[in-house]
Amino acid sequence: MKRFALNSATTKRWPLPELVAGCVDAGVAGVGLWREDLAAYGVKEAAALVRDAGLTVTSLCRGGFFNTPGWLAENRRAIDEAAAIGAPVLVLVSGGLPEGSRDLDAARAHVGEAIGALVPYALDAGVRLAVEPLHPMFCSDRCVVASLGQALDLADPYPAAAVGVVIDTYHLWWDDQVWAQIARDGRGNRIACFQVADWVTPLPAGVLLGRGLPGTGSVELRRFREAVDAAGYDGPVEVEVFAEEVWSRPGRAVLDETITRYLAHVAENPTT
Amino acid sequence: MKRFALNSATTKRWPLPELVAGCVDAGVAGVGLWREDLAAYGVKEAAALVRDAGLTVTSLCRGGFFNTPGWLAENRRAIDEAAAIGAPVLVLVSGGLPEGSRDLDAARAHVGEAIGALVPYALDAGVRLAVEPLHPMFCSDRCVVASLGQALDLADPYPAAAVGVVIDTYHLWWDDQVWAQIARDGRGNRIACFQVADWVTPLPAGVLLGRGLPGTGSVELRRFREAVDAAGYDGPVEVEVFAEEVWSRPGRAVLDETITRYLAHVAENPTT
Repeated sequence: MKRFALNSATTKRWPLPELVAGCVDAGVAGVGLWREDLAAYGVKEAAALVRDAGLTVTSLCRGGFFNTPGWLAENRRAIDEAAAIGAPVLVLVSGGLPEGSRDLDAARAHVGEAIGALVPYALDAGVRLAVEPLHPMFCSDRCVVASLGQALDLADPYPAAAVGVVIDTYHLWWDDQVWAQIARDGRGNRIACFQVADWVTPLPAGVLLGRGLPGTGSVELRRFREAVDAAGYDGPVEVEVFAEEVWSRPGRAVLDETITRYLAHVAENPTT
Repeated sequence: MKRFALNSATTKRWPLPELVAGCVDAGVAGVGLWREDLAAYGVKEAAALVRDAGLTVTSLCRGGFFNTPGWLAENRRAIDEAAAIGAPVLVLVSGGLPEGSRDLDAARAHVGEAIGALVPYALDAGVRLAVEPLHPMFCSDRCVVASLGQALDLADPYPAAAVGVVIDTYHLWWDDQVWAQIARDGRGNRIACFQVADWVTPLPAGVLLGRGLPGTGSVELRRFREAVDAAGYDGPVEVEVFAEEVWSRPGRAVLDETITRYLAHVAENPTT
């Protein structure tokens, strides 16, 4: 349990104070938060709430969306919020193609430039940027970064302490290159965040809310955890599931099931 | 227009005799057919219908689904049908994970073995096998072959005349490696089939029927056609769109719009 962290997206409708109390009660040490959580409760108030409960903030979601007007100022605000809440990592989801554009190469090049523009600010704030590749089904409208190889290429020009990557099992499980890329990553110490969700079909309309809790789908979750460990990662393991079916249930019941499933399908050595 | 071909999936509810007559009337030289077309009309009757109309069958969809019982006999029947209808190419969609399995490596290894088992039979029949990588969103339930690089790796052990690959813009457009892989392909003369559809969001539930006619989405279609040409491919260009909105319209109206869009977004030099 020492590495388990609840990403608040898994229990989206659980108000932050209840989530924090529930995590403490369940013996959870870390939480991944969203900017929406901070907006709803206030950044300082949220920071005090989490700190007073003795919880660690493992990451803040999210910056990015570099294809939208005002992205630079918005991402600086996100970095400020990560620093204020005590999150060591800001997750970056790049955004899709600009409205009306089909120029994927240009959109990807712009992501590289945007990361470069943010690095000095993030270093000053003590926040590590984490480039998240999303599943290729989100390439046009959410994230032009569609593989771990691409994310690592984007991180490469910068110190590992400034720019890392997110490894999310849901987005990467299909990729026959992913194991080699995780090993490549290990050499550069680029893994800034490790998130777990399972792949379940059929996908719902819009495909955003079709993830499964660990063990409900087709991903070799333990193999992923072992691979990131072998690459030198020893940080938190966030469970982050977007699913209407999960959101519709009480937060504490979801947390308890998530922990049980994490221990059975992700954590080390469940049988010994 | 000499390379344009209508894949019958685009006009799924257009009966084959009407489709054939419509293609002749519109000046279309090639059609890609499905085994369902042959089952509905009879293989010999369909072959006579197409031949008497002077049309070329560019490909038959599809064999594969190697994760289902009886796959070997079923794929031999598909090869026989391709030979009978005069299709030079049988498209193979590998199938997803076996029921209850998460072992993606094993499923992929089995695809390689299955192709090997079919090669002698296909060579005898004069039918080229074409491995189709599907979009990674289909990896668990339809096709464990999720990138062009993987498909080329599967084809590599066999002569190019026996095993090639399908390049379908819908499935491959997101991949930052695709241009290099198409060029790799050219050296081996592996492109057996080139299919065009556009990527449109939001995706519908189940994600199968969300494709767009050329020019309605975010894919650089002409760039793909130019890349396969540069790799040495000079065969047919099939437009293959699965979309409820398209299927619900009269076949001839869809064909006319498809041709117009093909000329505007895919074919060479529309302005000269």
